[in-house]
Amino acid sequence: MSSKLRLALVQLAVGKSKLDNVTRAVQKIKEAASEGAHLVALPECFNCPYGTQYFAEYAEPVPGESTEAIKEAAKENGVYVVGGSVPESDGGKFYNTCTVWGPKGDLLAKHRKVHLFDINVEGGICFRESDVLSPGNSYTTFDLPQCKVGIGICYDIRFAEMAQVYSKMGCKLLLYPGAFNMTTGPVHWELLQKGRALDNQVYVGTISPARDTSASYIAWGHSTLVNPWADVVATTEHEEGIVYADLDMDYVNKVRQMVPLGVQKRNDMYEIVSKK
Amino acid sequence: MSSKLRLALVQLAVGKSKLDNVTRAVQKIKEAASEGAHLVALPECFNCPYGTQYFAEYAEPVPGESTEAIKEAAKENGVYVVGGSVPESDGGKFYNTCTVWGPKGDLLAKHRKVHLFDINVEGGICFRESDVLSPGNSYTTFDLPQCKVGIGICYDIRFAEMAQVYSKMGCKLLLYPGAFNMTTGPVHWELLQKGRALDNQVYVGTISPARDTSASYIAWGHSTLVNPWADVVATTEHEEGIVYADLDMDYVNKVRQMVPLGVQKRNDMYEIVSKK
Repeated sequence: MSSKLRLALVQLAVGKSKLDNVTRAVQKIKEAASEGAHLVALPECFNCPYGTQYFAEYAEPVPGESTEAIKEAAKENGVYVVGGSVPESDGGKFYNTCTVWGPKGDLLAKHRKVHLFDINVEGGICFRESDVLSPGNSYTTFDLPQCKVGIGICYDIRFAEMAQVYSKMGCKLLLYPGAFNMTTGPVHWELLQKGRALDNQVYVGTISPARDTSASYIAWGHSTLVNPWADVVATTEHEEGIVYADLDMDYVNKVRQMVPLGVQKRNDMYEIVSKK
Repeated sequence: MSSKLRLALVQLAVGKSKLDNVTRAVQKIKEAASEGAHLVALPECFNCPYGTQYFAEYAEPVPGESTEAIKEAAKENGVYVVGGSVPESDGGKFYNTCTVWGPKGDLLAKHRKVHLFDINVEGGICFRESDVLSPGNSYTTFDLPQCKVGIGICYDIRFAEMAQVYSKMGCKLLLYPGAFNMTTGPVHWELLQKGRALDNQVYVGTISPARDTSASYIAWGHSTLVNPWADVVATTEHEEGIVYADLDMDYVNKVRQMVPLGVQKRNDMYEIVSKK
């Protein structure tokens, strides 16, 4: 089994037409596969502008038209696809939901955003996802030939404990589809990603929509892949594009040998406990 | 009670003469007090060059000559002093130990470095503190009028769980006397500090010795104070000096209102448990 993984982070331009959004996502999956990607990741809300006023209108069941389209794209191109997220409707409730598809079109995992984005930054951004959405209550991982992967959506990245639990589960790659904004993006997006990577000695990828300055919520962009030494392996600015990164699980092992945090943790003094 | 705290981080030039080191530390405490500091913090190994070959030679009991000198300095100047660290000898063992003194010369806390610095970075630094030192087994906090403070020493900062426990205990300021090196300093020193500050929504201060390029272990310097939004409040390069920073506990509360991580944590899914 190879330790090498070619990852594509699709910084998709998302507009108001769901059909256009999904069509473009499918095209990008095909393009990334043709460039040798094993795993293609889409951004949060890849089929829908980000905003509480849009979620109910764009919501669909899972499986539904948007997730079926990326399922077919995974199958046709023989790649793993982390389907960013879509607004999901289920039983009269709405969720911010990521589906993960295998190269045979098999549903490998479904993650509902656990930590809803409710913040109120003076002079910056006020947002209350919980006005519309319900939270998920589960951890979500799936297995690639190269490693186990943990999934969080956007605000989930602010909660160190979730990444720590994923690391304890054996994940060596964490992926966070997310749409930070022009207030928190410049100050916290890369820092959070680097912190999760360094503390857990894992690769961490973030996948943002491209920036649309005419949108009500303006995304920061800057989809990035960080390695376990906290180096930025690949990144971009705010325009549509695909960020490619070559990961090597042997490098994860090497960092863990050089700075052996795992065996040095004081399990007699503290422990991160998962209750699921 | 004021929410304001004036902190002085003393980036001390440490050489081979213990007497000179301690004398200079005492002078710096006096200088910082005259500048209005309420709390003065010294670096790791303020009385001793950093290196396993020095610890036994420079070690002393606590209380001992070095810690008594800073106790007197705290008392004479009416300030709190976080005494960086000294090599401590106790019962045939050696520890890397921080003492904390109140403005009346009262010993408020004693921290023995919990995580010993054993790393081996290819092409960079190899170091094994555990060849000489024994680890501490306790958390260490003390109370200022403004807030509770948690103490870690250097490598302790790499372990997120320790900072999380301190945060759960109610600390709003974490201080890490530390001597990162020319390999890990440039890449991880500020990142770790910012990550602890942002994740726990606390102030974090680091206090390094000044850089001595003739030493066997060359310190990175860059003593820094970061606020709970992960902004660098005050910092310096690698030469001897005092970094002053004005902290405001009302700002901690404000950040916690704007981005209410504390109440948003999913206590039904995870928990950081202290076993002490």
